[in-house]
Amino acid sequence: MSAFAYDATFGPIVAAIDAEMRAIRAEQRPVAPLLWAIVDYQFGWDLPPDAHAEYQRVTGKKVRSLLMALVAQAVGGDYRPILPAAAALEMLHNFTLIHDDVMDRSVERRHRPAVWTRWGQAQAINVGDGLYALSNIAITRLLRRGVPAHKVVRAVETLSQACLWTCEGQVLDIDFETREHVAPDDYITMIAHKSGTLIEAAARIGALLSTDSEAVVEAYSEFARNLGIAFQIRDDALGIWGEEALTGKSAKSDLRDKKKSYPVLVAFAQATPDDRATLRTLYAREALDDEAIAAVLGILERVGAAAATERIAQGYYERALAALDRTGIENKTQAQIRHLAAFLIERAY
Amino acid sequence: MSAFAYDATFGPIVAAIDAEMRAIRAEQRPVAPLLWAIVDYQFGWDLPPDAHAEYQRVTGKKVRSLLMALVAQAVGGDYRPILPAAAALEMLHNFTLIHDDVMDRSVERRHRPAVWTRWGQAQAINVGDGLYALSNIAITRLLRRGVPAHKVVRAVETLSQACLWTCEGQVLDIDFETREHVAPDDYITMIAHKSGTLIEAAARIGALLSTDSEAVVEAYSEFARNLGIAFQIRDDALGIWGEEALTGKSAKSDLRDKKKSYPVLVAFAQATPDDRATLRTLYAREALDDEAIAAVLGILERVGAAAATERIAQGYYERALAALDRTGIENKTQAQIRHLAAFLIERAY
Repeated sequence: MSAFAYDATFGPIVAAIDAEMRAIRAEQRPVAPLLWAIVDYQFGWDLPPDAHAEYQRVTGKKVRSLLMALVAQAVGGDYRPILPAAAALEMLHNFTLIHDDVMDRSVERRHRPAVWTRWGQAQAINVGDGLYALSNIAITRLLRRGVPAHKVVRAVETLSQACLWTCEGQVLDIDFETREHVAPDDYITMIAHKSGTLIEAAARIGALLSTDSEAVVEAYSEFARNLGIAFQIRDDALGIWGEEALTGKSAKSDLRDKKKSYPVLVAFAQATPDDRATLRTLYAREALDDEAIAAVLGILERVGAAAATERIAQGYYERALAALDRTGIENKTQAQIRHLAAFLIERAY
Repeated sequence: MSAFAYDATFGPIVAAIDAEMRAIRAEQRPVAPLLWAIVDYQFGWDLPPDAHAEYQRVTGKKVRSLLMALVAQAVGGDYRPILPAAAALEMLHNFTLIHDDVMDRSVERRHRPAVWTRWGQAQAINVGDGLYALSNIAITRLLRRGVPAHKVVRAVETLSQACLWTCEGQVLDIDFETREHVAPDDYITMIAHKSGTLIEAAARIGALLSTDSEAVVEAYSEFARNLGIAFQIRDDALGIWGEEALTGKSAKSDLRDKKKSYPVLVAFAQATPDDRATLRTLYAREALDDEAIAAVLGILERVGAAAATERIAQGYYERALAALDRTGIENKTQAQIRHLAAFLIERAY
């Protein structure tokens, strides 16, 4: 599925999620106009309509909230009742991005300066906090769509738990940066929480708002949990071997930043004693220069890190698809969910 | 009401809130032990029982969640059903403290090093985010206490709106620091949101979980909103004229840090042209030394800033008490709420 097919297939749902988010934002009486200006900037709502449409096409895939909508449609036949939850998830995801950029000192987000580089760290922290609060307000709007109150409470609990796990994953990620030894399994635990739990929550909430069958809810959750892990491991591979023109970030930038991503951990675990000593020496440096990057790439090649990474990603992807089959649901939207999963895993950027 | 009477009167409720918070924390399966170690540190749960009791006595007044419990008891006769909401509010308040300390570079909190000084800014941001998520999980536990689901959703919405307003107040506060001119009325708007909305939410949620009378809910909300503003203005006065031994922070520290608190804004607004020119020159400096502080204190005295500050705080306090009377509720707990309000306003620390 190309980016073009993505837009053609999912464009209307993505637009409906964006419209729901804007409606929630429009209901707020601004106390601090600066906070709202920054929220608008984060979602590209500061752009004129034409520019926003292009911004949305290039940067606004809204994968998580789209997945929630598709699951709701596959299970219950209609995604519209769950739009407030999809908007809430998208806001929550963006709050974590704003804070992550502060923590990682990432200067760019969606081809524009990251919030903290324009308004400072303190305001970026504040706006992230405020956006999380707005996400919580958003989800309570499910009541207005006729969702029973006890299901709304369950959606709040599920989304909050996912957010807590995301934070725990981020705590581990930062902690790992300063550890000399990180086992590949610990790394999987980290990404499963940091990146996987919001994707899992997307499918879980989409399902639980649309059916009372716990078996269906669990099968969709397992599908999305495994998909999220596969997606992140593929992302690690792209961070080393991806094409710069497609990924939009400098090729090998993850190596330059000494990111302990999955392929690197495989190398640490499986390299010869000599190669491992070299890795230790290089990763004790402040940053890696071109020569050091070439040395690491050589070691990655000798241990077959690319194939090992591909293999493990493929394993999680297959588990995801098996769980999707176990939902027992077959219809046009379910086929679209398979397309979306394939798009996320096979993407080259 | 002395601190001793506070403990004697409210100790059991404060202990019940603390126990509820610990029960919520104990239910979580830790993914990142570091996050939980920091949460435990923030609440003093890392201390041995004796030391925790003393820490709690000195630093753990839990004013906001206590107010929620008292309102619930005054209105509905029992505070226990709302304990999950009280725990949620206390967690939310502490998440804002952890982030505020990062933003303000405050090195101390409750006589111990602030979280960010021990674990770094990034982890402080993470743990704050995680604690907000835990707060949202906490409030959903109201269901287990027999609170109807639609009331739980309303509590979530009320608490989330209060959090959003708190963030907006904080955005204004940081924005004001770099503005030359801040009108006293704009300042009131700022503190009403930054400090007032969580206190208002405390009373509002305590009431709405205990009655269906909107008039009672609104009267308690108005009481707490005005009390919160009066409390903050009194806090500003203590930051300049409070006794160091009681406030626990260096006397005049707010002047040294060039905090544009209410008395200072009164001086900017009402000083003679000469004094105003002096203020402008001094507040353009990086920080104020002892000589500059003495000059500002002289100007504050000449405009009668202490009396003006006292007068405005008193006005909000009286509006608070009038609203409390309008609830139409009179019982032993309502009398305790009056005691608590007086304690907050008359405190010398």
